[in-house]
Amino acid sequence: MTHGNDTNGLIVEPVARLIDAFSRLPGIGPKTASRLTFFLLRSGDEQARVLAEAIIQVKEQVTLCKRCFNITTGDYCPICVSERRDRSKICVVEEPLDVLAIERTGSYRGLYHVLHGHIAPLEGVYREDLKIDELVARVKSEPVDEVILATNPNTEGEATAFLLLKDLAPLGLRITRPARGLPTGGDLEWADPDTLGSAFEGDASYRDAAYCVPSVRLRDIHFTFAVQLRTGASQ
Amino acid sequence: MTHGNDTNGLIVEPVARLIDAFSRLPGIGPKTASRLTFFLLRSGDEQARVLAEAIIQVKEQVTLCKRCFNITTGDYCPICVSERRDRSKICVVEEPLDVLAIERTGSYRGLYHVLHGHIAPLEGVYREDLKIDELVARVKSEPVDEVILATNPNTEGEATAFLLLKDLAPLGLRITRPARGLPTGGDLEWADPDTLGSAFEGDASYRDAAYCVPSVRLRDIHFTFAVQLRTGASQ
Repeated sequence: MTHGNDTNGLIVEPVARLIDAFSRLPGIGPKTASRLTFFLLRSGDEQARVLAEAIIQVKEQVTLCKRCFNITTGDYCPICVSERRDRSKICVVEEPLDVLAIERTGSYRGLYHVLHGHIAPLEGVYREDLKIDELVARVKSEPVDEVILATNPNTEGEATAFLLLKDLAPLGLRITRPARGLPTGGDLEWADPDTLGSAFEGDASYRDAAYCVPSVRLRDIHFTFAVQLRTGASQ
Repeated sequence: MTHGNDTNGLIVEPVARLIDAFSRLPGIGPKTASRLTFFLLRSGDEQARVLAEAIIQVKEQVTLCKRCFNITTGDYCPICVSERRDRSKICVVEEPLDVLAIERTGSYRGLYHVLHGHIAPLEGVYREDLKIDELVARVKSEPVDEVILATNPNTEGEATAFLLLKDLAPLGLRITRPARGLPTGGDLEWADPDTLGSAFEGDASYRDAAYCVPSVRLRDIHFTFAVQLRTGASQ
């Protein structure tokens, strides 16, 4: 049986180039890339032109907000300029998509700070590659009471949150994380041990609440928000 | 819980437009479309430019071969102009991607004819939307001995093949189809009844071969080709 090389000459150059360009996108393998290419070949000129122009314009027009580094088209993002947001809270996330996920829950009305990644020394991502110094500067200059470390609940996210905690702790403000626990609609039987463990640790601090209300404020306030964040992420 | 509409204002216009353009591609839902968009936002200007230009150029430069309607950049495709192909055979397929799948097997050295679709009256695809008249004209004017109807082995493909058969039968040339049977590496136990049935019908004509060799020529010649076509399709 002969292999791919034999057919390379049969795919004309512009088609091969588009298949190659598509297959450099994340989650798109060579088969999907050919399918998309042949779809565009069949489709009208208009659809291909709209897609190509949208790609060019997204790079030309989209910038990062000068305050929170969320994506925007001007100097500041719609959240930073909104007068309806609670300016005493900053929610720190890894990526702009995380802002959308949290906004979709409707449970958070504060500001954001987008790090643009997580600490991953093995992939060559260090502290200085993230917007960490910018966060520290913001916390020092803005009237912030609380920073919510909403990095992803995985190893890299935890490491990043730990690093942020070290930087922010001396500044004397409240530092919280979205609650861990069982996802809404989930099944206790199928929960992994870590999640179920977190859920029981969470429950323990709820019981403390009877004696010391302020210590559960994080869980109290962010329970719905955290649950909705998880639900959104698993879709 | 608030829904999507609430976040629409937060996605700046160029980003929303690219998400929308990506999600019009087949097999790409809104989640994948956002992921691709945010990937391009993070990636270098070069990668986005290469993709956008590849899309434009594929529409500008790619045409259909004037003889077989396969995709190409000039008047005729590389297969039609090749002197190493057997000009007595035409393999009729639905889409240009089918040509690549068959070429990948290395088991067929004849020419092709791409119909650009299959008969599907419910979707508004009729006989005149396919390159059927062009095929009949080719068969009449070129030195063709055999036409292989390699439309897909499903309802629409079978209907299209039947229609072609009606048009081509009066022209007095050999008309064959790639063999049906068990896919290589498959498991007899898991084969669907239709496939297993075809495999046994195929075997029956093999037994006839002892008495009448010419009647099994199709199966004889195309067995490997058909098996490889299936294997390719299931990847």
